[in-house]
Amino acid sequence: HFVRNFSCSPASTGVDKLYPRHDNFSDRHIGPSAAQRSKMLDILGLKSTDELIRKVVPENIRLDRELNLEPPVCENEVLTRLYEITSQNQTWRSYIGMGYYNCNIPSTIKRNILENPGWSTQYTPYQPEVAQGRLESLMNYQTMVADLTAMDIANASLLDESTAAAEAMGLCYRQNKRSRFYMDAKLHPQTIAVVETRAESLGVDIVIANHKDMDFSKKDFCGVIFQYPDTEGNIEDFTRLVDTAHAHGSLAVCATDLLALTILRPPGEFGVDIALGNSQRFGVPLNYGGPHAGFFAVKDSLKRMIPGRMVGLTQDSAKNKCYRLALQTREQHIRRDKATSNICTAQALLANISAMFAIYHGPKGLKYLATRVHNGTHIIAEGLKKAGHTIEHAMFFDTIKVHCGTDRQTVLDRAQEKQINLRTFEDGTFGISLDETVKEEDMDDILWVFGSDSTSAMVAESMGESPQGSISNSGFKRNSEYLTHPVFNSYHSETKIVRYMKMLENKDVSLVHSMIPLGSCTMKLNSTTEMEPITWKEIVNIHPFVPIDQARGYQQMFAELERDLCEITGYDNISFQPNSGAQGEYAGLRAIMAYLASIEQKHRKVCLIPRTAHGTNPASAQMSGMKICPVDSDKQGNIDVRHFAKLVEKHRNDLACVMLTYPSTSGVFEEGVREMCEMIHDAGGQVYLDGANMNAQVGLCRPGDYGSDVLHLNLHKTFCIPHGGGGPGMGPIGVKKHLAPFLPGHPVVSPSGTSGPGATPFGVVSAAPWGSSAILPISWAYIKMMGAVGLRHATTAAILNANYMSTRLSDYYKTVFRGKYGFCAHEFILDCREFKKYGVEVADVAKRLQDFGFHAPTMSWPVPGTLMIEPTESEDKEELDRFCDALIQIRLEIRDIEEGRIDVRQSPLKHAPHTMNVVMSSTWDRPYSREQAAFPAPFVTSINKVWPTCGRIDDVYGDQNLICSCPPMESYSSPYLEESVSEESKEKIAA
Amino acid sequence: HFVRNFSCSPASTGVDKLYPRHDNFSDRHIGPSAAQRSKMLDILGLKSTDELIRKVVPENIRLDRELNLEPPVCENEVLTRLYEITSQNQTWRSYIGMGYYNCNIPSTIKRNILENPGWSTQYTPYQPEVAQGRLESLMNYQTMVADLTAMDIANASLLDESTAAAEAMGLCYRQNKRSRFYMDAKLHPQTIAVVETRAESLGVDIVIANHKDMDFSKKDFCGVIFQYPDTEGNIEDFTRLVDTAHAHGSLAVCATDLLALTILRPPGEFGVDIALGNSQRFGVPLNYGGPHAGFFAVKDSLKRMIPGRMVGLTQDSAKNKCYRLALQTREQHIRRDKATSNICTAQALLANISAMFAIYHGPKGLKYLATRVHNGTHIIAEGLKKAGHTIEHAMFFDTIKVHCGTDRQTVLDRAQEKQINLRTFEDGTFGISLDETVKEEDMDDILWVFGSDSTSAMVAESMGESPQGSISNSGFKRNSEYLTHPVFNSYHSETKIVRYMKMLENKDVSLVHSMIPLGSCTMKLNSTTEMEPITWKEIVNIHPFVPIDQARGYQQMFAELERDLCEITGYDNISFQPNSGAQGEYAGLRAIMAYLASIEQKHRKVCLIPRTAHGTNPASAQMSGMKICPVDSDKQGNIDVRHFAKLVEKHRNDLACVMLTYPSTSGVFEEGVREMCEMIHDAGGQVYLDGANMNAQVGLCRPGDYGSDVLHLNLHKTFCIPHGGGGPGMGPIGVKKHLAPFLPGHPVVSPSGTSGPGATPFGVVSAAPWGSSAILPISWAYIKMMGAVGLRHATTAAILNANYMSTRLSDYYKTVFRGKYGFCAHEFILDCREFKKYGVEVADVAKRLQDFGFHAPTMSWPVPGTLMIEPTESEDKEELDRFCDALIQIRLEIRDIEEGRIDVRQSPLKHAPHTMNVVMSSTWDRPYSREQAAFPAPFVTSINKVWPTCGRIDDVYGDQNLICSCPPMESYSSPYLEESVSEESKEKIAA
Ligand SMILES: Cc1ncc(COP(=O)(O)O)c(C=O)c1O
Ligand SMILES: Cc1ncc(COP(=O)(O)O)c(C=O)c1O
Ligand SMILES: O=C([O-])O
Repeated sequence: HFVRNFSCSPASTGVDKLYPRHDNFSDRHIGPSAAQRSKMLDILGLKSTDELIRKVVPENIRLDRELNLEPPVCENEVLTRLYEITSQNQTWRSYIGMGYYNCNIPSTIKRNILENPGWSTQYTPYQPEVAQGRLESLMNYQTMVADLTAMDIANASLLDESTAAAEAMGLCYRQNKRSRFYMDAKLHPQTIAVVETRAESLGVDIVIANHKDMDFSKKDFCGVIFQYPDTEGNIEDFTRLVDTAHAHGSLAVCATDLLALTILRPPGEFGVDIALGNSQRFGVPLNYGGPHAGFFAVKDSLKRMIPGRMVGLTQDSAKNKCYRLALQTREQHIRRDKATSNICTAQALLANISAMFAIYHGPKGLKYLATRVHNGTHIIAEGLKKAGHTIEHAMFFDTIKVHCGTDRQTVLDRAQEKQINLRTFEDGTFGISLDETVKEEDMDDILWVFGSDSTSAMVAESMGESPQGSISNSGFKRNSEYLTHPVFNSYHSETKIVRYMKMLENKDVSLVHSMIPLGSCTMKLNSTTEMEPITWKEIVNIHPFVPIDQARGYQQMFAELERDLCEITGYDNISFQPNSGAQGEYAGLRAIMAYLASIEQKHRKVCLIPRTAHGTNPASAQMSGMKICPVDSDKQGNIDVRHFAKLVEKHRNDLACVMLTYPSTSGVFEEGVREMCEMIHDAGGQVYLDGANMNAQVGLCRPGDYGSDVLHLNLHKTFCIPHGGGGPGMGPIGVKKHLAPFLPGHPVVSPSGTSGPGATPFGVVSAAPWGSSAILPISWAYIKMMGAVGLRHATTAAILNANYMSTRLSDYYKTVFRGKYGFCAHEFILDCREFKKYGVEVADVAKRLQDFGFHAPTMSWPVPGTLMIEPTESEDKEELDRFCDALIQIRLEIRDIEEGRIDVRQSPLKHAPHTMNVVMSSTWDRPYSREQAAFPAPFVTSINKVWPTCGRIDDVYGDQNLICSCPPMESYSSPYLEESVSEESKEKIAA
Repeated sequence: HFVRNFSCSPASTGVDKLYPRHDNFSDRHIGPSAAQRSKMLDILGLKSTDELIRKVVPENIRLDRELNLEPPVCENEVLTRLYEITSQNQTWRSYIGMGYYNCNIPSTIKRNILENPGWSTQYTPYQPEVAQGRLESLMNYQTMVADLTAMDIANASLLDESTAAAEAMGLCYRQNKRSRFYMDAKLHPQTIAVVETRAESLGVDIVIANHKDMDFSKKDFCGVIFQYPDTEGNIEDFTRLVDTAHAHGSLAVCATDLLALTILRPPGEFGVDIALGNSQRFGVPLNYGGPHAGFFAVKDSLKRMIPGRMVGLTQDSAKNKCYRLALQTREQHIRRDKATSNICTAQALLANISAMFAIYHGPKGLKYLATRVHNGTHIIAEGLKKAGHTIEHAMFFDTIKVHCGTDRQTVLDRAQEKQINLRTFEDGTFGISLDETVKEEDMDDILWVFGSDSTSAMVAESMGESPQGSISNSGFKRNSEYLTHPVFNSYHSETKIVRYMKMLENKDVSLVHSMIPLGSCTMKLNSTTEMEPITWKEIVNIHPFVPIDQARGYQQMFAELERDLCEITGYDNISFQPNSGAQGEYAGLRAIMAYLASIEQKHRKVCLIPRTAHGTNPASAQMSGMKICPVDSDKQGNIDVRHFAKLVEKHRNDLACVMLTYPSTSGVFEEGVREMCEMIHDAGGQVYLDGANMNAQVGLCRPGDYGSDVLHLNLHKTFCIPHGGGGPGMGPIGVKKHLAPFLPGHPVVSPSGTSGPGATPFGVVSAAPWGSSAILPISWAYIKMMGAVGLRHATTAAILNANYMSTRLSDYYKTVFRGKYGFCAHEFILDCREFKKYGVEVADVAKRLQDFGFHAPTMSWPVPGTLMIEPTESEDKEELDRFCDALIQIRLEIRDIEEGRIDVRQSPLKHAPHTMNVVMSSTWDRPYSREQAAFPAPFVTSINKVWPTCGRIDDVYGDQNLICSCPPMESYSSPYLEESVSEESKEKIAA
């Protein structure tokens, strides 16, 4: 019988026997073939994957049924199905503004970056020697932001404008410890909402006022934020406000617009301390709210307080300039609850697109676009005035507020007829925001909607060469230069920018080259079929604030994905608002607090966090206003149950929750998870589950079943959203019923269930109601194509792969932790601490792996001096073997040192990675050969060689002074740590 | 005033001053900036590009007006515009068959090959050291074809199935010189038509017959062709036919289907000499007829007669195995009118996609797809029988012929209702062909259309596990293995195939790396916006034989493109049927002959062809049945006018035409072109213009104005279709009114103007009515975005670039030919012949360029020992300078030899290209340094270094015996040649 041995059985219909389904995506997604799987099981001494799972997953949490999902959809049918759903979205023309503007993503940037796995499947550039391409691009982004805002220094993106504003508020508060913060009333409503939410848990009082009425004289305000141009489009002079704030020791924060700043006096020129905003309109579509990159720039004096990732220049071992992530000691992975923010995943890919957009257009091109948009807005304003309307503000860039001089309903009806969305204010006025995509016909339609008899051409005819009241004729005109760096003035032909993008791409290791077994990061296949919809026009061309009936396709997709994720995790509801795992943590903790408050348990503030937890956990708990109480681990890497019990007992009256990562960051399924959850509940607390390791659980056990109340999912790990070199991600949270009423709402468009009777949202966590909506089709498609059996199969393959590698390596490296029966979960930690006595650091091993064409595993987290390896299910045995071979070869090189055959200082380990220039130089005085340097294993050949483009980065050189002042993690030193964490703090950590 | 200095002025509307157009694509397409252009003009001693053009283009042909085209469309609007047009196409489900079947292109293959400029912008792999990736992939294609057909050897693709059949007929004729050829009546009608057309000009008699009635006994048939399965789906045993043909000295040719052959006894197992067909259904969409790759495979004994490109294994300078184009001496660029065919551009990119499709599925996956399609067809057949219909043939694969047992019109109406296309035979029967995309619901619909009460599930239920009469239960079952090579059994997970595709991509130089200044090839920007529509579903999912009202979008696009191309060239009509330049030549010459016959001048057969013409010219003339008469060139590279006049005089009574390339292949605008055209017309002949060099003319002069009657356009040169590593291309022909009635028609769907009153098509040249329709949007979009001014500007920039390079190089290399005022056209020929006396060959220069990261220019054509450089308008001055610097550096290396500083045998020139392994080897005993080897100029760095992946190819090793037996071009030696062409024949020539 011909039916192919599909690993997941087809849905049964009558024709099946003769005409089975077309394909089985899970066979494409999962790396190891059946034959490879049985070989690996042999080596583990096991008969079946079932046996493996019985030995890995504790019996008392194991799911004893298949997940109840739809039968898998064939890969070649899934997009038709999705298209049926998303084509319910209506793509009207939106002139709503409020921080989101249509724009053109140049085709060549879309295709060569966004649609190119060479860019999208990169990881955060923790290994700079094989990441110079995206580091350069992010540096371009930072330069662009700093130049346009006229600030000293910018970071490499935040999640969105509103969270950037919240970060700014937090920075002000940390800076001068004053607990009041002014917000100008003319900020975007979502920004006000997100900052208010954030302020509440920090204990900061938000005062919303007209900036003219602000009073700093009591010196009790840490800072003030205003929008420029403001949410109604008005441009005002904030110089005096800034000066007054400064005079009274407050910081001044400006939310602004990059396109406007090409012609508008930038905030850095009137003294603001922080400038922030959304760089979406630089080449990233509306995306129904996201993803796009928020930007954040500060004065030099504040650079050590900046939140998020930042790229800096440093030098390599050959003293050549190169890029790296700078000032990492500000960040959660080093500084945990004392970090400048909880940001981990940000929006690298979108930042790169925006940077390329600026490179593509250059300063002249951007100014041209801005002037055009500005003039268009003047044409509309003029036309509307002629038609009897009043324009509220005289000085604007691209947005006007219109007092209707005619019948308001007629305007609404005509807008409907033309499929045009305007902003409608509660007072009956309208907002209109123009953008670079607006055509003459569009302007004609807007004029018609407002009852004008004139076309835009007729209006323009009467206006002369430059509109009256235009920025360039005012004191607001920008006179300073920007984007003068050659990179913004060199790549304006498509031929050149394509080569530039390719050159950068080819510097970097991504999943198109080799496995990237970063523990806790789940670098698995991001399939093209999953990726295709994210550039469909029905997905991308929707403003986040359109009436909900224009986004029915989105709503259906959200509902289907929510249903599937609930079934997979065992929760009752999902909120898609958090757009990273860290945001999910924050949102989940806030939901817990709101729930506790609702049952009169507001005083419960203690949050237990294992010392091995990811840095975002304490950072998020801190942001949520909780009191962090670290839990020790035992020698097996598990939570020290006695310590845990003691702490629960101790905090019986003030325990808010525990944050558990499961399986643990030690790479094992702890046996006692169910009991621990029970203990917490007994003590009146809630259980937060960090779902970063969900890839070990899908189909095998459900966090909602074994006692947790809320979890975040990193859709960019388990559910196939590519990492994009450090974002975008999505961190939706799943909650049990009792927490559902508290899920985040939104001031403009309420996600379903977050408004109306029974809903009591704790607040708002993202600028957009559903976070980065436009990448959700990736996870939707993954689940639909895999089906229940496929998903479970993926999980078992991930666990099998990890155990196989751990076993193959066991003669050479110790796996630090194993579960009850001697197995690890989907990842494992290799010990490199013993090599220290020969002078070999774990970083040497990591860098030497680059010579083999491999990206290093997660380094020194959660245990300093170790490597955490997560192969994922998508890598097959051949690739696992190559990686093992590389590690074994490295172990032999260490043995050469151990046994005195080579001086450690002269060993290839210390000189790794080896660049082309070094290996090909005329002079070669190393005790090992050039071949050993560059082709250290038979599988590394001239054909697949991936060259590090710089030598070992000098970490000290770049951050020297800063590292000393920012001692990391000290208070979290763990019993099994042989070295103090602070010594290791200089090492880059990937998780 | 802010209006950007657009190089082409915007269309004037009222808002222009304040609100000019959004962008100017021509600024993106054209490389040199205004500043660079004026620098280059300075160096040429010219004041303006106008002055340059006056010195380059003869006054008597210069166009004194702007082209009359629509105003340019902004890049960000053009696809909306195109979408409005193409959305008129209706994508019904087509079960028409006839050689075209729906299929799924795996998303990852589409994105990583078709949509990836790293693959699409490659050139034909004439420089194997930087083309091992696509050579390996084409080798995979050949292996796939040979395996599935069970033939000994296959080529790397032909244009389509019907032309492959015509090539087979030609091969049979050349092989045994018999002038009759049998065609089985059950071949696809388009195949019969194309072969008949081809046979007519070769003087071969086609006899169409039922294969059972064929009589070989007179030994007057060169061969026989039949289809298996035949056009009605019937499978018959042709063993006896083949044996009988062989017994009488005739060759047997089988047109077949690759998917069927995965379960069907292959033609190689019953003795056929040639197997051919269309590999479209392996991963290439219907594309409304094209492009897809025709395949062609032969017995070993016929390998030297095979048409088209073929990849072969050879070894490099280090004796490592590597790939190269084999047996080039069969081809037109060497053998001209004695070549095995006129094929130059074929379908490399599509062949690569089909090969990847086979790799993705592997033998088991393909067999699974085939069995599924086969079973589905049985379900339909069974259901139809139950519903009272009769199935004409009992043994079939995927196609059945149905005699309607019910009301025929009802079937047609229901098909219409369900938007289903069936094949309708003239006798009232229906054809139904299934394919891998057919879903259960589709089968249900088909059954319903035919009045069945049963669903496919109900029918299947009654059929058991394997259908009665299925191939696997018959003597037709395939028992032999296929695709056993590891490449077809290793890359079935998406992760693995992505890495395989990337690994191959990264071996090859393409336009994403550096300029590829191949003279006569016009390797210019292929912009992403132009490329986007070619994967739109409205473009790709249309069967070529749907009723024309389902393809209204296509028809409008054809009409607009025809109009624009007529305006650009000065002709009256365009035929889009020829799908390569060579096919255009053939079609144009046949149109001339048909016209001559229509005016009683059938005896005119002489075709004058300059000795410098491209090899396809004589090859096509030969195929057209003309008598080729070579015209000498003078020392300036121009046609020797006296010789020309003498020949015209001599052939006053039998002159059919001249084939001119303009500007000439010597890279100059000959002054006398108008006069020559007049002389030809005076003598009663026609002028064929080879439009390969149209990139030098657009907007400056029009071939239709200066006296030519017909030309072909290589849309894959001037009009931006990417070369795809050797295809697809499009070679539409433009004709003057008097030739229009003779343009090719089609037996199934007539292109407009080719049927009805007044139309007397000479025949049919391609399988599809409009050739490779699906890539026409590329040229359409290019013209729309550029507009008249942009196009002219591009032409002048191309000419400026060439003259700048020629001038910058003039102290180091002689430009062989220049025009009247000392300038070249858009390309120029550099002399390397003088280096021979120091032992340096032009090939050494070409190979050494690879060390600089550059692809060599066209080598030794039209003049042996030279390089022809065509920079195109898309390269900017910086890139031109780098290329010049490389050539200058090479000249200095030659000087080192000249002046005795280095022995030629030890010079980097002779060892070029240098591979990673060589440069990094522990042993280095060269007199020059490793750095000089690999980084010979400051702009070649470790960051942009493109490594040749093998050393210098050993040409002799691969083809040794063959080269000796195929002396090339001898009869065309030209007065200015210092060496005999035959000595140079081993050199690869790119044109
Ligand atoms: C265990 C764990 N928790 C939380 C996070 C934070 O998630 P995100 O990067 O999406 O903010 C990570 C990220 O790597 C993680 O590994
Ligand atoms: C001058 C000239 N004529 C004809 C051709 C043949 O065109 P094609 O390759 O499209 O068949 C070429 C192709 O390179 C050419 O350069
Ligand atoms: O990226 C992380 O630090 O997890």
